[in-house]
Amino acid sequence: MSIFNTKTLDPSVLRQLHRQLLQDFQQLKEAKLSLDLTRGKPSADQLTLSNSMETVLEGNYITPSGEDTRNYGGLDGLAEAKALFAPVLQIKPEEILIGGNSSLTLMYQAVMFSHFLGLTCPESAWNREGEVKFLCPVPGYDRHFSICESLGITMIPVAMNNHGPDMDEVERLISNDKNIKGIWCVPRFSNPSGIVYSDETVERIAKLGKIAAGNFRVFWDNAYAIHTLSPDAPKLASIMDFCRQYGTEDNVLQFGSTSKVTFAGAGVAFMGASAKNLAGFKKHLGISSIGPDKINQLRHVKFFAAPDSLEKHMQAHADLLNPRFNAVLSRLDANFKGSDVLTWTVPEGGYFVSVDTQEGLAKKVIALAGELGVKLTPAGATYPYGKDAKDTNIRIAPSFPKLAEIEKAMDAFVLCVKLATVEKALAA
Amino acid sequence: MSIFNTKTLDPSVLRQLHRQLLQDFQQLKEAKLSLDLTRGKPSADQLTLSNSMETVLEGNYITPSGEDTRNYGGLDGLAEAKALFAPVLQIKPEEILIGGNSSLTLMYQAVMFSHFLGLTCPESAWNREGEVKFLCPVPGYDRHFSICESLGITMIPVAMNNHGPDMDEVERLISNDKNIKGIWCVPRFSNPSGIVYSDETVERIAKLGKIAAGNFRVFWDNAYAIHTLSPDAPKLASIMDFCRQYGTEDNVLQFGSTSKVTFAGAGVAFMGASAKNLAGFKKHLGISSIGPDKINQLRHVKFFAAPDSLEKHMQAHADLLNPRFNAVLSRLDANFKGSDVLTWTVPEGGYFVSVDTQEGLAKKVIALAGELGVKLTPAGATYPYGKDAKDTNIRIAPSFPKLAEIEKAMDAFVLCVKLATVEKALAA
Repeated sequence: MSIFNTKTLDPSVLRQLHRQLLQDFQQLKEAKLSLDLTRGKPSADQLTLSNSMETVLEGNYITPSGEDTRNYGGLDGLAEAKALFAPVLQIKPEEILIGGNSSLTLMYQAVMFSHFLGLTCPESAWNREGEVKFLCPVPGYDRHFSICESLGITMIPVAMNNHGPDMDEVERLISNDKNIKGIWCVPRFSNPSGIVYSDETVERIAKLGKIAAGNFRVFWDNAYAIHTLSPDAPKLASIMDFCRQYGTEDNVLQFGSTSKVTFAGAGVAFMGASAKNLAGFKKHLGISSIGPDKINQLRHVKFFAAPDSLEKHMQAHADLLNPRFNAVLSRLDANFKGSDVLTWTVPEGGYFVSVDTQEGLAKKVIALAGELGVKLTPAGATYPYGKDAKDTNIRIAPSFPKLAEIEKAMDAFVLCVKLATVEKALAA
Repeated sequence: MSIFNTKTLDPSVLRQLHRQLLQDFQQLKEAKLSLDLTRGKPSADQLTLSNSMETVLEGNYITPSGEDTRNYGGLDGLAEAKALFAPVLQIKPEEILIGGNSSLTLMYQAVMFSHFLGLTCPESAWNREGEVKFLCPVPGYDRHFSICESLGITMIPVAMNNHGPDMDEVERLISNDKNIKGIWCVPRFSNPSGIVYSDETVERIAKLGKIAAGNFRVFWDNAYAIHTLSPDAPKLASIMDFCRQYGTEDNVLQFGSTSKVTFAGAGVAFMGASAKNLAGFKKHLGISSIGPDKINQLRHVKFFAAPDSLEKHMQAHADLLNPRFNAVLSRLDANFKGSDVLTWTVPEGGYFVSVDTQEGLAKKVIALAGELGVKLTPAGATYPYGKDAKDTNIRIAPSFPKLAEIEKAMDAFVLCVKLATVEKALAA
């Protein structure tokens, strides 16, 4: 089917197209597909890249610095793991804490401690100051929004552009409202749009501490810090370096993990923060934990002991991911390039392709795809409270299925987009 | 030195004894000991019992039921791990959740969710009802008390006897005060006294739900469920069986782990609860975690695959622990049996020997031992807010040091007890 602009087609052509699309839809329905493009999780092939981690210790559970990883002790992780992962967040080894298998848990704890108990002291607890609000660049990551919703934190959406959040709006809101205590950011290969925050945006975010409440924190979820699809992918500026320049080190908490580096369910998560924030966090963490699994940290240290091994490992991931992303992007290109039907991002890293339909069609496309047996992320999932006011955004996650499955799922998706769009045009 | 009762010695004998003890003390001080009896953590020999866990997967990360443990998914643990650990808590596999490496974390989360968010629904949140109180059988586990203190929960101490907490007092307090929302229990080989709750005590605790507030929970920390030192150690009745009898299944949360079975820092923790409590807990947990490390759960499943392997493994622990406990108990026997100087427990499991000095001497004994280079758990640590009103209890943890070190440390301890006691008698 050729590229088309609904506005330039006359009604009779549209009606003919509609009949053809309905016919194709019924035919594909009979194929009884069962495909899933919802989860940003690694494929079995990617996980297999790390299989040799199982035996990398070779029976030696003692760290190079002499710690027995089998026993209790060490709340903030192994020194060797700090040295390994601090560069991922572009910070110093003394600015990182190495946790368990989930950066989501570190983020939840940071929000929870800050809200109910005070991150650095009881007086800093957000819930002492009435309504607590967070800025949420949209589209964004649903699990960030779930944390806020579950803790009763009011979410204020802010639009994303190609350089990051709309910083004029962010600065305006924060200047005028001291009850805004946080902002969620996925600064490199943003979930879902895939964009990388520009240097200017990073610098302006680092400066927010100068106009915000003292207990305001940037939640800098650098989940895809090293997850490039292309060697030319844009670099991210170091927010902590900017913070040092402006004296706002205490206003930023950074997060990352190896969930999409080694094993999704058995990786290592970490948090980067100032000395003051780390001390506050560890005080609460020490009440609630015997400390992280140090054996798994040592596995990571030994697995990535060789110079450049982390970079080479990420290249192997990219080699597995690129054909999958291409299967999505080539179909969007072939069917919608230059049309008024769909816009999308071409990410150079991360795990998603973010697609925008014409207004009011995302829910319908997702429902149609569901009828064909193709599961897509629920409409609105990338917005606070699940509310995408314009009903346009769809998040496509191509990492997990096999290539042939993505191809089939995307063919079905293209069909559903066309059908929904033509029906809208006919109804106009 | 012979066994003595300070009351029956005349002042001149006491003075002579005092001079001798001071001389011994000065002499031992010069030996510059550096010994530690504070931490209930396994020795390197115990940890080595589980070393082969590293390679037990033999490269196969898929569970018997077909789950890929390397990836995301599965909030409440592997089915096979549930089947393995449910019997430890004497419950059904559908009544258990398998978590990460720390049962302390599960307990903290359970208290935190119940307090701020409501475990089963927002209306059940404790902090909606003014002051929140917990009953704390004493002496008890300091980290239970730290959780309460950090969350602003008022602790009410209740005396322990040889059958568990003083249940008359527990029932009286709970009947009269609906703001009591919890009680901490370590029902088998209690920390630190080592006693096992009697069947009658377990039954009365299971019945507390009938007289308590609806959102009252028993925190049943069965940390030493299978950690016996003797094959004849008293068994613990199943609290869940009693709860079924009284319809109080929703009032009990059980906890356990393999921290002192496999690896202290890299074991597997679990929580036993009713369907309603598990559903409520998982709703909050799902916001704050991508799920537990399933690979480590599978390691445990395969390591304990053979029938009776868990029992045999615990016997191997007992074989390593018994000489250490005997080094403590034999010295207490030889010096203080039949005296009025010291009373102590003879545990048949667990990790501690609990000692009571004459009133007002615990702090002094610990300070004296510190002067000799022998580190003991701080006085009062086994009481809420660190306050042991009678200043008598000292917790001795003999598991970690080498046997020769325990012997030396206990000789020093005996000397300090005698010196402190004789000085008290002389001052009377």
